[in-house]
Amino acid sequence: MQIYTPPIKDYRFLIEALGCAELFEMEAFQDFDSETLLAILEEAGKFCTEQMLPLNRSADTEGLTYDPADHSVTTPQGFKDLYQKFRKTGILGLCQDPEYGGSNAPYILGAMIGEMTTATNKSFSMCPGLTNGLVEALAHYGSAAQKDTYMTKMISGEWTGTMCLTEPQCGTDLGLMKTRAVPDGDAYRLTGTKIWITFGEHDLADNIIHLVLARLPDAPPGIKGISTFLVPKINHDGTRNSIYCTGLEHKMGIHGSPTCVMTMEDATGYLIGEPHKGMKTMFVMMNNARIAVAMEGLGLSEISYQTAVAFAKERRQMRSLDPGKRDMDHAADCILVHPDVRRMLLNIKATNEGMRALGIWTAMQGDISLHHADEERRNHASDLLALMTPIVKSYCSERGFLNTSDAMQVMGGAGYTADWSVEQYMRDIRIAMIYEGTNHIQALDLVGRKLPASGGRAMRSLQKEITGFIRSCADNEAMNEFLDPLKDASKQLTELTMHLAAEGMKDQEEAGAIASNYLNVFALTMLAWIWAVQIKEALGRDDAYAATKIKTGRYFFHQILPERHSLAAIMVAGKQHMMAFDVDEL
Amino acid sequence: MQIYTPPIKDYRFLIEALGCAELFEMEAFQDFDSETLLAILEEAGKFCTEQMLPLNRSADTEGLTYDPADHSVTTPQGFKDLYQKFRKTGILGLCQDPEYGGSNAPYILGAMIGEMTTATNKSFSMCPGLTNGLVEALAHYGSAAQKDTYMTKMISGEWTGTMCLTEPQCGTDLGLMKTRAVPDGDAYRLTGTKIWITFGEHDLADNIIHLVLARLPDAPPGIKGISTFLVPKINHDGTRNSIYCTGLEHKMGIHGSPTCVMTMEDATGYLIGEPHKGMKTMFVMMNNARIAVAMEGLGLSEISYQTAVAFAKERRQMRSLDPGKRDMDHAADCILVHPDVRRMLLNIKATNEGMRALGIWTAMQGDISLHHADEERRNHASDLLALMTPIVKSYCSERGFLNTSDAMQVMGGAGYTADWSVEQYMRDIRIAMIYEGTNHIQALDLVGRKLPASGGRAMRSLQKEITGFIRSCADNEAMNEFLDPLKDASKQLTELTMHLAAEGMKDQEEAGAIASNYLNVFALTMLAWIWAVQIKEALGRDDAYAATKIKTGRYFFHQILPERHSLAAIMVAGKQHMMAFDVDEL
Repeated sequence: MQIYTPPIKDYRFLIEALGCAELFEMEAFQDFDSETLLAILEEAGKFCTEQMLPLNRSADTEGLTYDPADHSVTTPQGFKDLYQKFRKTGILGLCQDPEYGGSNAPYILGAMIGEMTTATNKSFSMCPGLTNGLVEALAHYGSAAQKDTYMTKMISGEWTGTMCLTEPQCGTDLGLMKTRAVPDGDAYRLTGTKIWITFGEHDLADNIIHLVLARLPDAPPGIKGISTFLVPKINHDGTRNSIYCTGLEHKMGIHGSPTCVMTMEDATGYLIGEPHKGMKTMFVMMNNARIAVAMEGLGLSEISYQTAVAFAKERRQMRSLDPGKRDMDHAADCILVHPDVRRMLLNIKATNEGMRALGIWTAMQGDISLHHADEERRNHASDLLALMTPIVKSYCSERGFLNTSDAMQVMGGAGYTADWSVEQYMRDIRIAMIYEGTNHIQALDLVGRKLPASGGRAMRSLQKEITGFIRSCADNEAMNEFLDPLKDASKQLTELTMHLAAEGMKDQEEAGAIASNYLNVFALTMLAWIWAVQIKEALGRDDAYAATKIKTGRYFFHQILPERHSLAAIMVAGKQHMMAFDVDEL
Repeated sequence: MQIYTPPIKDYRFLIEALGCAELFEMEAFQDFDSETLLAILEEAGKFCTEQMLPLNRSADTEGLTYDPADHSVTTPQGFKDLYQKFRKTGILGLCQDPEYGGSNAPYILGAMIGEMTTATNKSFSMCPGLTNGLVEALAHYGSAAQKDTYMTKMISGEWTGTMCLTEPQCGTDLGLMKTRAVPDGDAYRLTGTKIWITFGEHDLADNIIHLVLARLPDAPPGIKGISTFLVPKINHDGTRNSIYCTGLEHKMGIHGSPTCVMTMEDATGYLIGEPHKGMKTMFVMMNNARIAVAMEGLGLSEISYQTAVAFAKERRQMRSLDPGKRDMDHAADCILVHPDVRRMLLNIKATNEGMRALGIWTAMQGDISLHHADEERRNHASDLLALMTPIVKSYCSERGFLNTSDAMQVMGGAGYTADWSVEQYMRDIRIAMIYEGTNHIQALDLVGRKLPASGGRAMRSLQKEITGFIRSCADNEAMNEFLDPLKDASKQLTELTMHLAAEGMKDQEEAGAIASNYLNVFALTMLAWIWAVQIKEALGRDDAYAATKIKTGRYFFHQILPERHSLAAIMVAGKQHMMAFDVDEL
């Protein structure tokens, strides 16, 4: 049984609460307003629920077929048809350049739809997800001719895209890359093996365009010697290029998403951007891709939550511990009378609604940073985007995974079976903590790159945002209940940031040891802030939805935010007890 | 790649550190001493590694075949042969009555071996696990004739056993049970449907003996009207009894362990124990079964740890943040130079070694409670056993699961693939939080039954144990570093226990709301204590093993024990924010 209601009500609320109307005043987004956004979300949500969700479980069970004879990959039954329908929805080009068929919608819309497509069919959603990444790289670094050749076909979904980064000896450490590219006229010949290539081969589209990182003959060593190439499966003249899928990984989840080993032998490729500047091309895609992963964590957490709630509303076991709540018309009470069942469900609900708000707010900073008329506003938003991206990627993927486990626990044995699919959601989301930069890489990005950049300007931008918000609540007494813990958490975060800066200056290894816990304290503090923002909006309303929102926020402040205490205590313990062991002692 | 080294060194250390020699002075265990125990452990470990582990992954991939035509279940390839070999090891009857072919070993040995069998093949290990449970029930409540008929054949493994408790409408709430038993001469006729029956049908043995809970016609309602019956698959006269497997569950993990729907239509059964006292029969099995589940959590956490360490020792990515540690003979450093990789690994190692010590110490209380010559010692041990059983079941199953996820994170993408099996360990262990009483049921057992029993005597017995230990360290200055946080944690636990008692007295629902977090603070405090016990032993030695043990303990005190702070803060927030929601608001 698969259950999903698109969170349109929450999107509607957030568009208001986060002040997204600001976006529609920008020239780039003048064709949009809240209602057009919501209409698109309704449509997309309907498509996800009616078309994508029904193929989710069957794809997991059926999996993929690889034929070594012709290197082909057959996707699960129904995917080909679903893909053609998906193309027609226009989701693929929603946030892309109109010149090539896109709709140039704000990225917040992409983030919201990303939540829904992942929730309803994570495996399938990865194909357009990768294509989008490639389109973005092309939009930034492709030549006019490259854009003409590829972008329209990829935005329409006629062709799909991949990212070929990882090799057997290098995942996190791309500097160890071996794939080489040798100039050959206007093109290059690429040779090497790439692994973990999502939708590297499949039967959904006529052509697959691979974005491949490789080294030119004159490349300097390390990541400063990596260039980016486009390697199409089918050459411009219709011949088959020598890039082949030579195997599929067998994975814990995302069984409908082919994870390919790709082998190139003198494959024809075309340089994108400047030689040796490939990492720059990668970085342009990272913000959006990492926010997308945050929304993935949220998406599977949300569908797991909805499934567990639906189960709990039907399931009757034991009597309420409060005699007044016993339903004597039945032999047992609905399990929602039990406080621990509520505790588990509310842990999910309160973090989900916080993560959704924070993810969309971060995506909005991306929109502002690109399209606001005022340069100062653009820079401010750019700072916030850079700072928050690793935080939301790491926190939402980890919490999303843990939430699927809590949802399973609510359902007991039923949750462990395939019948309700929560076990699939758990398996499918676990990869999000690993890919697109492991969560610790996010923590290192935060402490090593984002915090120190421009003399710590991003953190000051953020503090300005938070103190500005607190000031805006000055005459709002009902907010004090939430502002007090927010101020506490914010003060603690400042202290821990200073601790990190002082220790990290002396010893980078110390910074590395505490980065992951620091990131989580940071995330909790930001969730407290975004919850306060939501509560402020809800307090100004007088409806049932707003009343529930306030209760959920209150739950967050009392039952989730205190998680920061232990993280802080463990963080300041530092590296010494980790580094005390010789390798052989582990 | 599947990697496992039985933790014999740790067992050897624990037998010493926990004072297990006391057991060998008891008449019941006079045939045993430390060296015989260790010899048996060596043998069993060898069997697990050489015979059980090689079939673990293949069984997961192959799964089970159910044939509805004849209701048969075919186990994965190799299981039949493995089962015959397993029978010869004598593991099955190790802790059972010699009169029926058992070896009457202390239960600590059973717990240790349980860790290893689960680690190397959880699915397979569930078959003898269930059989053992049934043998225990028979040993306590079977008539002489029943013992004669069944016990020798089950202890030898000629026949296997199951527990048939759950029905579609009742899992946690056994009072809702519907299966009925009607007297028919000396026997009974049973009719009903049972679900989640582990190894309810299979092809490993000649007969399967089902322990079935059911209601007699004159049964009072609820759990006070449940009786226990033995229902053999093959009747005493060789005919087929009408208890049939009518379906298999499709589960997240334990794919080699058949989870059966069992349907009875006038099946012949035999009453065990008194009518309507079936829950008593169940409770006799619960302590051992719950400690066994704790050891399962540990077992899969341990094999995941060992796998991740082996991977990390080979894998090279990035450079050490400490220039002095860079290995310039290679293009990158071993990932064990990175503090976050160590953090994840040590989180596992430090909790594993704590859980192993606590699990075995709890099992030892079982042995003392049954076999010590002194009644006061027996009662004291019985108190400790009762109190600690729900704590170790819940904490070790949850932490074990989380640890498998940390192990995966160390391995990155490789951990998410089937190649290293950690993904299977994660899927296999997730059920342990649910079965044998969900973890919240453990928490309710702790706060609702174990703490208040005999006016809180068990908690006083425990405090005596801890303060006695602290006093024994009086002249041991090196222990102060560990005793100070232990005293702190212990003081906090006392305060929280008083808070729980005061609030729970006023309002049972409040107790239910805080029980799960309370259990986890309790577990952390007990782990701190058992770590201090281990460290004290290690401080008295002068070898590499002891030096590592002390470092690992130190890591626990600084990096794990502080988790109690957040749990305590969240616990005292209580029920109010959970219970504030109407059902429709969730």
